[in-house]
Amino acid sequence: MPILIVGSLAFDDIETPFGRSDNTLGGSSTYIALSASYFADKIQMVGVVGNDFEDGHFKLLHDRDIDTRGIQVVDSGKTFRWAGRYHYDMNTRDTLDTQLNVFADFDPHIPHHYQDTGIVVLGNIDPELQLKVLDQINKPEMVILDTMNFWIEGKPEALKETLKRVDVFILNDSEARLLSGDPNLVKSARIIRQMGPKTLIIKKGEHGALLFTDSGIFAAPAFPLESIYDPTGAGDTFAGGFIGHLSRCPEITETELRRAVLYGSAMASFCVEKFGTEKIAALDMLEIEDRYESFLELSRIEC
Amino acid sequence: MPILIVGSLAFDDIETPFGRSDNTLGGSSTYIALSASYFADKIQMVGVVGNDFEDGHFKLLHDRDIDTRGIQVVDSGKTFRWAGRYHYDMNTRDTLDTQLNVFADFDPHIPHHYQDTGIVVLGNIDPELQLKVLDQINKPEMVILDTMNFWIEGKPEALKETLKRVDVFILNDSEARLLSGDPNLVKSARIIRQMGPKTLIIKKGEHGALLFTDSGIFAAPAFPLESIYDPTGAGDTFAGGFIGHLSRCPEITETELRRAVLYGSAMASFCVEKFGTEKIAALDMLEIEDRYESFLELSRIEC
Repeated sequence: MPILIVGSLAFDDIETPFGRSDNTLGGSSTYIALSASYFADKIQMVGVVGNDFEDGHFKLLHDRDIDTRGIQVVDSGKTFRWAGRYHYDMNTRDTLDTQLNVFADFDPHIPHHYQDTGIVVLGNIDPELQLKVLDQINKPEMVILDTMNFWIEGKPEALKETLKRVDVFILNDSEARLLSGDPNLVKSARIIRQMGPKTLIIKKGEHGALLFTDSGIFAAPAFPLESIYDPTGAGDTFAGGFIGHLSRCPEITETELRRAVLYGSAMASFCVEKFGTEKIAALDMLEIEDRYESFLELSRIEC
Repeated sequence: MPILIVGSLAFDDIETPFGRSDNTLGGSSTYIALSASYFADKIQMVGVVGNDFEDGHFKLLHDRDIDTRGIQVVDSGKTFRWAGRYHYDMNTRDTLDTQLNVFADFDPHIPHHYQDTGIVVLGNIDPELQLKVLDQINKPEMVILDTMNFWIEGKPEALKETLKRVDVFILNDSEARLLSGDPNLVKSARIIRQMGPKTLIIKKGEHGALLFTDSGIFAAPAFPLESIYDPTGAGDTFAGGFIGHLSRCPEITETELRRAVLYGSAMASFCVEKFGTEKIAALDMLEIEDRYESFLELSRIEC
């Protein structure tokens, strides 16, 4: 089933205790698309870039068979830029600089040949734009949404309007507490699921992720890595692996949802091992399946 | 296999956002013993109490078939007292008062008929006292040790000496980082296991626990509870359930160790549902097995 991904494309300057990487290709939709590309037949990206987005950047996406015809190139401007520095514990970061550039006027236009897509992934962008995207799609099979505290605080009403039309909602633990107004994650999940999404994933960073559905709760561990070089994009990479696996399932069952969470976790565990998209742009299915097996092993009782 | 538990007995004054409980029976060995009592044939406690430790307190232990003949009663003093207040998030607490009382001069004496015990659990007490206990035991089958940051910072050398004689070491994530000097838990685990204990459990509170053995890593989730009333004793209750399950296994395999972590987690999840030992003093095996099944369900992939 084809996947349509709408979100940001960016250049990041990243500093971690292990080094730095400048002008790294990033953005929510980049990470989601690269990660999903190992599973999905057909990936269509919608976004906006400036005149500094070079052929090499497109090539990196094309090499993963990603359809970039939905990416608008604004010749008069620059691509969205973000600069951040991670602290020693890698769990907290400071944003040093944000330049929206061409992203400030992003008005997502879904090309005609994308409008019958099966799965729509709405990366972390203004919920008003997310609504605009949904208005242009013909009955999608599944809508997945990611957001962040910035929109929960800044545009709660638009976000809640969008959530009514969302099947799978992915956010992290602090965002879930913020949105629900409840510090307890189980209660938060119940409150948020009442806003619309039947399937909710709460990411807990190095502590794994929780999947909430009508069937109950599934707790996925995070991979206990010895070295984490750069957490940038790990959440989007999770979403990409999650939705990538679902796109290849003939039927979405509880088992497949749980497997999808583990595939997402496996992809995220690769992402943090190198800077930016370096690692997730150059994987093969063998190592992905191998990492997935390690995840199974991690929570297997019978040895 | 009989379990010998050496640790503190105390009276706690506990304040949480949900209420308060004064003069509650507590202490590391109390929680460990009550929790283990649902699994083990024979539990022997060694500790010290004052003249304020009443028949009713002994009765609560005897009702769970716990052998208290190793508990010294010092008529001239009072039992160890602790008072603490938990913050809104329940993850942090302030100690309001600590009165060591008779515990200040605790000199553990292992009764003759306890010296051939199979499993020795050294609750969170001065590592010099833990060593003294080990010197009095004839070749135990297994030594389990719990500790806290207070001893890691205050008596690191004695603690490391004790660790050489320990099979299973249980501590929490911040204590593991403190002891190893490494922020990464996988590296911490390797460093700590080199100090002696082949089996290491790192507790992560609401994020579950990690088991490190020669066979690899096992990640146990925490039970996603809607209401946590009082986290006091949850770590000790975990240890009790863990060792309780192992005590009934004819052979300690990797599978049994993993199951033991889940039984420990199940017991801890009960502990926090009421104040003090109220819940774990009055369980039955049916609800314990039921909670254990819920833990299995929580990380089961195939539904």
